[in-house]
Amino acid sequence: MHAFRAARNSDLPAVIELLVDDALGARREIVSTPPDPRYAAAFAAIAADPNQLLAVAVDEADRVVGCLQLTFIPGLSRAGMWRGQIESVRVSRSERGSGLGSRMIEWAVERCAERNCGLVQLTSDKSRADAIRFYEKLGFVASHEGFKRDL
Amino acid sequence: MHAFRAARNSDLPAVIELLVDDALGARREIVSTPPDPRYAAAFAAIAADPNQLLAVAVDEADRVVGCLQLTFIPGLSRAGMWRGQIESVRVSRSERGSGLGSRMIEWAVERCAERNCGLVQLTSDKSRADAIRFYEKLGFVASHEGFKRDL
Repeated sequence: MHAFRAARNSDLPAVIELLVDDALGARREIVSTPPDPRYAAAFAAIAADPNQLLAVAVDEADRVVGCLQLTFIPGLSRAGMWRGQIESVRVSRSERGSGLGSRMIEWAVERCAERNCGLVQLTSDKSRADAIRFYEKLGFVASHEGFKRDL
Repeated sequence: MHAFRAARNSDLPAVIELLVDDALGARREIVSTPPDPRYAAAFAAIAADPNQLLAVAVDEADRVVGCLQLTFIPGLSRAGMWRGQIESVRVSRSERGSGLGSRMIEWAVERCAERNCGLVQLTSDKSRADAIRFYEKLGFVASHEGFKRDL
């Protein structure tokens, strides 16, 4: 069985490995020992922000086999509704197809409900056909265009 | 000429009016005097969070004619890149087509650059055909599906 918990500093190398082992991440991440200081800085910024939760899925041996980031966003629209946002979802290659991804997302949705969010949102690259089917199966509706502009 | 600045408590009724005066907002917002306490609570949560910026566009008489919310999100992926997220963009009916929307978005993008964000992201409901053309013209790429799941 897997457990889900907030990431600790010591999980950082394993989380970076998950980010790298991905079709799009392979060309966007930097692997080194020790990790590039920008990862540690980002980890610290996430840990310091009560509206951020970097979570990991671990196996019986406490090995990191999945990760995601949750952001809780206060907003005025929809009568002051909070929203939960899921980002950077990764499941280790060995666990893909095992149902871990679904359980991890449902765990994240429960955290959003605990924080009184009225909706959960995420975007998925249109090239990730499997991910898009995965989220649709979990009850997410692709009602929006997801726009990005690089700086 | 318009100015852009952080919203103040006294702007709240005008911002709610902007949110209501919208095809989708009309059925999602609540108008009352004084404003429903949920709006004030959301405003306070935004003001208390250094990674949130609720901004308004004002005219020469300091009347609110536009608004948007910016969220600055730290993240591990893309080598610890921060991202800026734009939400709840509204322009008053009297100012639509004047170019105010573009100037407001460019102002928001500059705030993201100041905060060292590597990209700016937003989602737009697929039913908002005009908004989708607007963001494409401003250099945003609809590379992602935007998923929502109500709680």
